[in-house]
Amino acid sequence: MTDTNHKNHYTENVQDHLKEVESLLHKHALVEEVVHKQELPRQDRHALLDTLLHKQHLAELQRKLEGLHPADIAYILEALPIEQRLLVWDLVKSERDGEILIEVSDAVRESLIATMNREELRAAAEQLDTDEIADLAPDLPQNVMRDLFKSLPVEEREQLRAAMSYPEDSVGALMDFNMVHIREDVTLEVVSRYLRRFDELPDHTDQVFVVDRDDHFKGVLPINLMVVNEPHMVVGELMLTDTIQLHPDDKAEQAAQSFERYDLVSAPVIDEEGKLVGRVTVNVVLDFIRTESESDLLNQAGLREEEDIFASVWKSVQNRWAWLALNLVTAFIASRVISIFEGSIEKLVALAALMPIIAGIGGNSGNQTITMIVRALALGQINAGNARKLFAKEIGVSGLNGLIWGSAVGLFAFLIYHSISLSLVMTLAMILNLLVAASLGVLIPLTLHKLGRDPAAGSSVMITAATDSGGFFIFLGLATIFLT
Amino acid sequence: MTDTNHKNHYTENVQDHLKEVESLLHKHALVEEVVHKQELPRQDRHALLDTLLHKQHLAELQRKLEGLHPADIAYILEALPIEQRLLVWDLVKSERDGEILIEVSDAVRESLIATMNREELRAAAEQLDTDEIADLAPDLPQNVMRDLFKSLPVEEREQLRAAMSYPEDSVGALMDFNMVHIREDVTLEVVSRYLRRFDELPDHTDQVFVVDRDDHFKGVLPINLMVVNEPHMVVGELMLTDTIQLHPDDKAEQAAQSFERYDLVSAPVIDEEGKLVGRVTVNVVLDFIRTESESDLLNQAGLREEEDIFASVWKSVQNRWAWLALNLVTAFIASRVISIFEGSIEKLVALAALMPIIAGIGGNSGNQTITMIVRALALGQINAGNARKLFAKEIGVSGLNGLIWGSAVGLFAFLIYHSISLSLVMTLAMILNLLVAASLGVLIPLTLHKLGRDPAAGSSVMITAATDSGGFFIFLGLATIFLT
Repeated sequence: MTDTNHKNHYTENVQDHLKEVESLLHKHALVEEVVHKQELPRQDRHALLDTLLHKQHLAELQRKLEGLHPADIAYILEALPIEQRLLVWDLVKSERDGEILIEVSDAVRESLIATMNREELRAAAEQLDTDEIADLAPDLPQNVMRDLFKSLPVEEREQLRAAMSYPEDSVGALMDFNMVHIREDVTLEVVSRYLRRFDELPDHTDQVFVVDRDDHFKGVLPINLMVVNEPHMVVGELMLTDTIQLHPDDKAEQAAQSFERYDLVSAPVIDEEGKLVGRVTVNVVLDFIRTESESDLLNQAGLREEEDIFASVWKSVQNRWAWLALNLVTAFIASRVISIFEGSIEKLVALAALMPIIAGIGGNSGNQTITMIVRALALGQINAGNARKLFAKEIGVSGLNGLIWGSAVGLFAFLIYHSISLSLVMTLAMILNLLVAASLGVLIPLTLHKLGRDPAAGSSVMITAATDSGGFFIFLGLATIFLT
Repeated sequence: MTDTNHKNHYTENVQDHLKEVESLLHKHALVEEVVHKQELPRQDRHALLDTLLHKQHLAELQRKLEGLHPADIAYILEALPIEQRLLVWDLVKSERDGEILIEVSDAVRESLIATMNREELRAAAEQLDTDEIADLAPDLPQNVMRDLFKSLPVEEREQLRAAMSYPEDSVGALMDFNMVHIREDVTLEVVSRYLRRFDELPDHTDQVFVVDRDDHFKGVLPINLMVVNEPHMVVGELMLTDTIQLHPDDKAEQAAQSFERYDLVSAPVIDEEGKLVGRVTVNVVLDFIRTESESDLLNQAGLREEEDIFASVWKSVQNRWAWLALNLVTAFIASRVISIFEGSIEKLVALAALMPIIAGIGGNSGNQTITMIVRALALGQINAGNARKLFAKEIGVSGLNGLIWGSAVGLFAFLIYHSISLSLVMTLAMILNLLVAASLGVLIPLTLHKLGRDPAAGSSVMITAATDSGGFFIFLGLATIFLT
C-alpha cells in the first residue's frame, strides 16, 4: 500500500555506482596484496586477511550494493572482470539473486550460474514469475528445473510449461501472466472496489482485460478510461473491442512492430479458441528490440553471440572462430582464382597491385545494396510487384557508380602506369564488378527470404566472396585478353 | 468520453492492407493503360479516364485508406514506388496529413512534403502537438514555420521554441508537454474529480506529476497507486519522490537506458531550477532505440542516411558515394603498398595469389574486436581500470587465432606451392597481422571515444585500411626478406 512496495532505487547515472564499487574493490584488493607481499605462512596470512580493515571494505561494498536496483547490480556485474564479478555476486543478498539473473546478459548469466549450487538456484528461481523462470530455463541444470516444477502450484506449473513450449522468437516467449481480469456486466464502482483489494497492480497495467466466465476475451478497459468516467458506468459500455490482439504463435518481431506503430503499453495474447492466455508489455518489447538490434550488429561482425567482454581467451576464440573459418574458405577460393592468372601477373606485375581495388570496392558497394534490401525485407516492403523495380534501380545506381569510380581508378592507373589500355581495363572491370555486386546484392537476400531463411545472416559473406573472386576474375580475365 | 476518441483502427498484419492497396492501384493502372493504348486524341483520352470505372477504383481505395491507422498509411506509403505513393498521398484525407507525416521515415517525408504547398503544410502542422511540430520542423520550409509561430498561442509558441532548441540526441528532443499536474495537499477523491473533467488522459499517462504553485517538481503519483488506494488518502502521503528524473540536456541514449533498466512508461523532465518542463514516454524511447540501431546498421554499410527504397538513382548515388570514395582512397593506399614489392612478386608470383588471404582475415578479425569494444563503450563498461585487461585479452585471442588460422593458411600454401619457407612466411604474417588487428581494434575506438567522437563511426574503415595495407606490407615484406 505504500511506496516501499515499489522498486524505487532509481539512479540517473549507473556509471557513478560502477566507479564507487570499483574503488571499494580496489581498496579491498590493495589490502590483499599487502597481506600477500608479507610472504607469511598461509595460516597467518589468512588470519591477517580476516582483520577488521579487510572486512570493512567488504561490508561497505555490501551496504552499497543493497541500495541498488537489481538492474544496476546486473550492469555492474557485466562491467567487472570475472574474479571481481564473483566477489560482488557473493555479496549480493540471496533474496535478489533471481531478479539479477534475469537482468544480466546471457554470457554473464552463465558465469554466475556456474558458481551456484542446486539449492541456491532453486531458491533464486522461486522468487520469479513463471514467465521469468521460462526465460532462465535454458541456463538452468535439468535437476533444478525438476525441483522447480515439483514446488510450483498446479496453475503456475501449467503456465511454466506453456511459456517454455514457445520458440524464442514468438509472442509466446515474450508474454507474462500478470493480468487483471474483469467481467463486462459490472460498473466502474465495482471494478474500483475490486482493484483496491490488490496491494499493487502488476507492472505496466495500463488496461484491465474483460473476459467471460470461460476466459474468452471480450475487450479491454484502459485504466485511463476508468479514471475519467463516472463510477456508475458499466464496463461493457466503455470497453474497447477493436484493439490489437496477439497470438502466442505470432512472430515476436511482428508484435514489436505493432507496439511501435500503435504506441502500446500492453496487449492481450489470445489463443485459437479466443481465450485470454497472457499479455505482452512494452518493457519486454523494448528488451527484445534492443537484443535483436545488438545481435544484428554482432552477427554482421561474425560474433556468434553476445560476448562477455571479460570472457576467457578460449571462450572468445570459440565465439569467433566460425566466422574466420568461413572467411578463410572464401579467401582460399579467391586465391585460387588469382593463381589461374599467374602467367599474366608475371608478365604485367602492376595487375597484382591493382586487383585488390576492384575487389574491395565491389564488396563495399554490394554490402550497401544488401543492407538496403535486408532492411526493406524486414519491414515487409518488398514483394513480387516491386522487386523488379528495385532491381532496376540498384543496377542503375551501380552502373552510375561504376562509371564514376571506374573512371577514377582508370585515371589513377594511368597516372601511375602510363598505359591507356590498362586504365581502360580497370574502368571496365570496375563497372562489371559493381554490376555483379548490385545483381547479387538484390538476388541473395531475396532468395534467402524466399527459402524461408534469415536474409540478414550470411548475405554479407556471400556478397563479399562473390565480389572478391568475381572482381579478381573479371579484372585479371580482361587484362589477360587485352593486355598480355 | 467514448471509445471513438481512441485511435482504434488496429490491424494485426499491415502487409495485408498493403497488398489490398496495391491491387487497387494495379486495377487503376490497368484502366489507364487500356485508355492510353487506344491511341485516341488527348482530349478523348481524358474523357475516357473520367469514366465511372476509373473513378470507382480510386473511390474504393480512398474508402480503404480512411479505415486505416495513420501509422499503417505511413507504412504503405513507404512501401510504394514514388508515383503510386503520391497518388495514395493525394487520396488521404487532409485532416490526417500531419499525423502521417510524423509517422513516415525521413526520406519518404521529404518526398511527400515536396508535393505540398505552404497552406497545406501549415494546416497539416497545426493538427499536431508542439513536440511533434518540432520533430517536423527541419523538413518544413522557413515561411511555413513562420506562419506556424504566428498562429500558435503564446504558451505553445514557447514550448515549440524550447523543443526546437535541443540537439537531436538530447532528452529535450524526445520530450512532450502533455502532462497532468496535481498538488500534494489534496486527496485522491479530489484528484479523481479533477481527472474526470478530462475527455481522455494524454497517451501513456501511467502517472500524474505532483508540483507546487511554481511548477517545482515534488514527485509522481502512479495511476495504479491511485486505483488501489482509498479516496480519502492524501497525494503527499502516497506520491513517490525517489524516482528517476531526466534533464533536458541529458543524452537521449542515457534516458533510453534508464527506460530499459527500470521498465518505465513515462518519466518527468526537470530543468536546472527543479521545475517540471515536460515528460518522456516509452513509445518515443522505442522509436529512438529502433532508429538508433537502424542507423548503426546503415552506417556500418556506409549509407549516410536511411534511404527511401524507391529513391531516384541519383539520390541513392549521393547517399552512398562518400563511403565508396573513402574506401577507394584506402584501396589506393593498399595498392601503393603492394607496388613497393612488385620486384618480389615478379620473382615469386604465388605471393600475389596469397596476399589477399592475409589482408582479408586480418580485416575480419579486427572488425570482431572493434564491434565488441564499441558495444562495451556504448554501455559504459570500459574505463581506465579495465582497459588494459581487455587489451591483454584481445591480444591473447588474436595470438591464438593467429596460430590456428596461420597454421591453416601455411598448410594450404604448402599443399599448393610445396615450399616450407613460403608456408612459414604465411603463418608468421597471419599471426602478425592478427596482432595488428587486435591492437588497433582496441586502440582505435578507445582513442575516438577519448577524443569525444563516436567510436562506431569510422572505426571499421580505419581497421580495414590498416589490416589491408598492413597485411600486404607484413606478408610481402617478410617474403622479400626470406624468400627472394
